Amino acid sequence: MAIQVNKQLVEDGKVGAMIEWLASIGETENGGVTRLLYSSAWLEAQLELKSMMDQMKFHTYFDSVGNLFGRLPGTEGNNKTILTGSHIDTVVDGGKYDGAYGIIASLLAALRLLHKYGNPKKTVEVVSLCEEEGSRFPLTFWGSRNISGAYNLTKVENIKDGEGISFLDAMTQVGFDPKLYSSPVRTDIERFVEIHIEQGMILERNQNQIGIVTHIVGQRRYTICIKGESNHAGTTPMNFRKDAVSTASHLISFLTEKAKHTDPMLVATVGRLNVKPNVPNVVAGEVEFSLDIRHHEEKIIDQYCQSIFTEFKRISDVLNIAIDILQWMDVKPVKMDEEMCEWASEIAEKKQFRFQKMISGAGHDAQVFGGACPTSLLFVPSRGGISHSPKEYTNLEDLETGIELLTEVLYKLAY
Amino acid sequence: MAIQVNKQLVEDGKVGAMIEWLASIGETENGGVTRLLYSSAWLEAQLELKSMMDQMKFHTYFDSVGNLFGRLPGTEGNNKTILTGSHIDTVVDGGKYDGAYGIIASLLAALRLLHKYGNPKKTVEVVSLCEEEGSRFPLTFWGSRNISGAYNLTKVENIKDGEGISFLDAMTQVGFDPKLYSSPVRTDIERFVEIHIEQGMILERNQNQIGIVTHIVGQRRYTICIKGESNHAGTTPMNFRKDAVSTASHLISFLTEKAKHTDPMLVATVGRLNVKPNVPNVVAGEVEFSLDIRHHEEKIIDQYCQSIFTEFKRISDVLNIAIDILQWMDVKPVKMDEEMCEWASEIAEKKQFRFQKMISGAGHDAQVFGGACPTSLLFVPSRGGISHSPKEYTNLEDLETGIELLTEVLYKLAY
Repeated sequence: MAIQVNKQLVEDGKVGAMIEWLASIGETENGGVTRLLYSSAWLEAQLELKSMMDQMKFHTYFDSVGNLFGRLPGTEGNNKTILTGSHIDTVVDGGKYDGAYGIIASLLAALRLLHKYGNPKKTVEVVSLCEEEGSRFPLTFWGSRNISGAYNLTKVENIKDGEGISFLDAMTQVGFDPKLYSSPVRTDIERFVEIHIEQGMILERNQNQIGIVTHIVGQRRYTICIKGESNHAGTTPMNFRKDAVSTASHLISFLTEKAKHTDPMLVATVGRLNVKPNVPNVVAGEVEFSLDIRHHEEKIIDQYCQSIFTEFKRISDVLNIAIDILQWMDVKPVKMDEEMCEWASEIAEKKQFRFQKMISGAGHDAQVFGGACPTSLLFVPSRGGISHSPKEYTNLEDLETGIELLTEVLYKLAY
Repeated sequence: MAIQVNKQLVEDGKVGAMIEWLASIGETENGGVTRLLYSSAWLEAQLELKSMMDQMKFHTYFDSVGNLFGRLPGTEGNNKTILTGSHIDTVVDGGKYDGAYGIIASLLAALRLLHKYGNPKKTVEVVSLCEEEGSRFPLTFWGSRNISGAYNLTKVENIKDGEGISFLDAMTQVGFDPKLYSSPVRTDIERFVEIHIEQGMILERNQNQIGIVTHIVGQRRYTICIKGESNHAGTTPMNFRKDAVSTASHLISFLTEKAKHTDPMLVATVGRLNVKPNVPNVVAGEVEFSLDIRHHEEKIIDQYCQSIFTEFKRISDVLNIAIDILQWMDVKPVKMDEEMCEWASEIAEKKQFRFQKMISGAGHDAQVFGGACPTSLLFVPSRGGISHSPKEYTNLEDLETGIELLTEVLYKLAY
């Protein structure tokens, strides 16, 4: 039955139908998609994709962590590969396009080239990466980081999902037995190209169809803990208080204003904030909040962190309140390949697409590959900038424009 | 067995032992006390107290909501009563002194007068009020408000505790059958005196033994709801955001500073704050926070509220973010009786107690009685200002000083 559907899909080669087909695997009652790493929906999606690639005459195979590859062997016989694709996993109740669009677009672009020009000079592989989001287990980029060699089995030996299932058990359960693990590291990848939805509102606001990413931002994440003193809200005069909520408010106002005035591309976000004891008539003794800072230049992040943490220290001293700063993420900015940016721009210009160069504020597999080989990341618009939600949407015309650009880029790289 | 203990306690008449005895009823594993309205610990405490009062030769009785009275009939035969006491209920895992001290101090003061001078000219009643805290059911001052006539059974017809037990069932279970309800309203109370722990740090900081309360603050409580827009923390530039957390921070910083500069006695507290979705890498779409405002002059509260809510409105307009202001408490300030303040001050001065006049920032039964008859509220220090905690503590000397003052005040009023 599934294979029959795939046959029709393959014959039609329509991106909209393929998005809907893939989104039906792990579909939620809200119209979203939940396809967590090594879940049954994840396995079904990878197997269906493999079956589709087989019908498209790709040579298919899994590596030992579950990355799925569809290969069009090159005629020139060197052992270098042009890799293109994105991730198959989703967040809980995520959208239909995040990751999935990149896989489908890569497949359709490679297929169109195959049909039009036959096999490429250089080997082309389409990859459906097993994991990027970090939504089931507390790690991200499991797929691409195995390929780049940053991660291997030792990284996941002791981690479990929210239900207490160990990573290795989950892996075994869907047929990737850790005992049979052989390194998925690839040294043959000459270039990597990923196309993805923007997950932001810049393209939409600028009425552009294509974003050509020049940099993926670096990210630092912190937990800030403020320890004041819990007191009676009625009997404690304002000047006797060590109020963790008002202290946190000062810090957040300061860091927000500072972010606005440091650099237009800098973003700083306090998305999580918890108060103790969190009762209306008690001055709060403790506040813990998250701080997420992103920019594409390390030195701007450095400069920003220094200025806000200096203020944090000053406030801590003035108020005699402990402010602890705990860093738990430090991802460096990654520059995309300049030459590939130029090629993509030239093609977009020739085709009269409305496009712009831009920074990616979100993390993508391209940043992992970008550390290992020349890499390009292309964006199509997200309606309202909404992502990680069943409301995620990109219109058909934009999806098609992305595929058209990717097709030309792959032609340039492999034919 | 219990009665035997009481006998010894009565004979010794020592406040420390009596505090410990009462705290043993409803004792928690943390060394605190939980005595919620109409619980078994509550019933045991009221019955033990009644037995103690009986042994002290008070005429004892319950009213129909469970307020316990111990009466020393006046010799002058008019029908006016001097009432003194406090509340028997506690918060969950509260301290040994909050409420309990006022009952015990009143008992000991009346007993000492009885032993020294015989029956008073005016009737004296010691009251163990059934409820003040609002810790089990969502209402406060159930004891005093039944006596003042502000509340009756219709007020509690539809309310339940956290476990779904209805107020009326809980009442019935401990022997106060609502079907037998007859109004506990008292029109014979000439004056009310309450002694209580301060629950703040003002007396301790000023090294005073006694606080003579001139006003009990008015309180307004609000829930402030900010509805911004949830967005991706990486892909949403700062100037595109409608960030509920940074907006809340601005409002809280503003209201805190404004409180400090409006009046030294004004307090404004944001003790509870909840964020949605409360995830580090998502710009928060919603924040809800509590706002508790207290002062002893209505016009200062009015002025303060007007100035902060004007700023809230301005920010809402500037940022195009909805800010809803929902008021759910409005308790008017209450002035204690000036004459009684003067009498207490004169006595304290004569006895060379270190005392001060002060405002009560917390609510007390005295504010309910204060609306009905001349009322006085006296404080003893709380170590570190700590209350509603097993760590609540007042040293024996201060407890005794309070009783000595109360004894003299009752003598002045009733002998």
